[in-house]
Amino acid sequence: MKKIRAAVVGYGNIGRFVIDALEAAEDFEVAGVVRRDASNVPAEIAKYEVVDDIAKLQSVDVAILATPSRKVEEQAEKVLALGISTVDSFDIHTEIVGLRSRLNEVAKAHGAVSVISAGWDPGSDSIVRAMLQMCAPAGITYTNFGPGMSMGHTVAVKAIEGVKAALSMTIPLGTGIHRRMVYIELEEGYEFDKVASAIKSDAYFVHDETHVMQVESVKALQDMGHGVNLTRKGVSGKTHDQLFEFNMSINNPALTGQIMVSSARAALRQQPGAYTMIEIPLIDYLCGDKEQLVKALV
Amino acid sequence: MKKIRAAVVGYGNIGRFVIDALEAAEDFEVAGVVRRDASNVPAEIAKYEVVDDIAKLQSVDVAILATPSRKVEEQAEKVLALGISTVDSFDIHTEIVGLRSRLNEVAKAHGAVSVISAGWDPGSDSIVRAMLQMCAPAGITYTNFGPGMSMGHTVAVKAIEGVKAALSMTIPLGTGIHRRMVYIELEEGYEFDKVASAIKSDAYFVHDETHVMQVESVKALQDMGHGVNLTRKGVSGKTHDQLFEFNMSINNPALTGQIMVSSARAALRQQPGAYTMIEIPLIDYLCGDKEQLVKALV
Repeated sequence: MKKIRAAVVGYGNIGRFVIDALEAAEDFEVAGVVRRDASNVPAEIAKYEVVDDIAKLQSVDVAILATPSRKVEEQAEKVLALGISTVDSFDIHTEIVGLRSRLNEVAKAHGAVSVISAGWDPGSDSIVRAMLQMCAPAGITYTNFGPGMSMGHTVAVKAIEGVKAALSMTIPLGTGIHRRMVYIELEEGYEFDKVASAIKSDAYFVHDETHVMQVESVKALQDMGHGVNLTRKGVSGKTHDQLFEFNMSINNPALTGQIMVSSARAALRQQPGAYTMIEIPLIDYLCGDKEQLVKALV
Repeated sequence: MKKIRAAVVGYGNIGRFVIDALEAAEDFEVAGVVRRDASNVPAEIAKYEVVDDIAKLQSVDVAILATPSRKVEEQAEKVLALGISTVDSFDIHTEIVGLRSRLNEVAKAHGAVSVISAGWDPGSDSIVRAMLQMCAPAGITYTNFGPGMSMGHTVAVKAIEGVKAALSMTIPLGTGIHRRMVYIELEEGYEFDKVASAIKSDAYFVHDETHVMQVESVKALQDMGHGVNLTRKGVSGKTHDQLFEFNMSINNPALTGQIMVSSARAALRQQPGAYTMIEIPLIDYLCGDKEQLVKALV
């Protein structure tokens, strides 16, 4: 069996777990790792090619963009232009439709596929929400997150001037309402109140109850566990009070890395264009013979 | 907007709820109802054409086969041969791969689509199982049903000689193990022990702990509520103990009817052939503009 050659772009929290998932998948091989500083090669990836430009890697089928959401578009455009398919876990919900539309053009122009927002929310939770809408078209879905560290929010805090280290915890208050507990270490010479105010007015935080706290060590608070409780109460046909619930308790970057790798497999099975996860048949994410999968899962 | 014209084949438990779901969906209209005895027209469907042969109905886009699993293949073949797409809720898990393969040929030959096993299990539960396999490729999924009435099992009991009325309840014993509690009214002149033994040796029951009881009135026991508790404990990449759970508490035929109608919509968006639900993008099951759906659900 010819293996899928995947490059990992970025080697932070998620990139490490993407490598894990690629190594655990029998149909993939790591084509290389792309880092800004290609001379920075941690021991666990010393066996792979580490480069500062994906164009330096040989025959890459798909690039997994393990980079902050706000860098996704620029990087995806660059990679797609080489005819290489991409997967990202872009998580700014309000900007997904626009990103999909723009990357769709680029992907089609270069005969490649871009699977966007392929994490767990957006991502697998989106799949659950779409499925529940199919089961009960009228009704309300609530997605309750946490308690757990939000990687997207944490990265957003880290990007704010004056923040040395950060942790953003998501606390579920029920019915889709959340509190953000933000713990930061301050850079020297910055004023806490001004930095806290900049965090609270960031697009990631402006709609939620947000508390910012200064701590001595963010590292001492870190735990990568996270959770979801997603509920729908709705109407099937004319029958009310149909109740559905999805729960998970997971290592956050490990699940994201796994879903990105599964989506990289799916990318190579779609026609050129950009897709969110609900636009791809579930079977395409899975390794193995189609009839065997139908037999085991349906 | 041109509405999808759907015919309902069979008007039992499920057929009634399929009509409900069609009437509740803004993009569908009822093309007619097909019954063996077309003169038997309950008041609530008096406004529709009721015929004994689908060929007598005008411009049908899709037929929803609300019939027992064991009649699905024969009926689907007949309808597909007319170039009309079909949806069924065939629920004999071990025979799904074979049915899919045979109907795939027929559907392709006549430029139609057949969505098979489109209920909640097989069906929406299959979607959850496939999604969880994508999230954690190694691990174990347990699907626990009930307590609730199994329609497939009840129909299977009713088909056994000597059974006047029947109810098969599914009781979850955990880790995917179930007890079947079968309540029957006996036809006159039949021996209970022989009928009970025939039930226990039926393919629907032979693998489960099955208790058959004779009652005076099956009707007095009937409640269409059902439930599922589906769990997966597995590995994302190399990270163990990722925990997932899906629960629902639903009116059984109402959910089945709704999923069949959603699948009828999806049928008209696929290339000719036969599909299980995990082979179709989730967005195709949903009513509405694609970008709006991505915005609302992803």
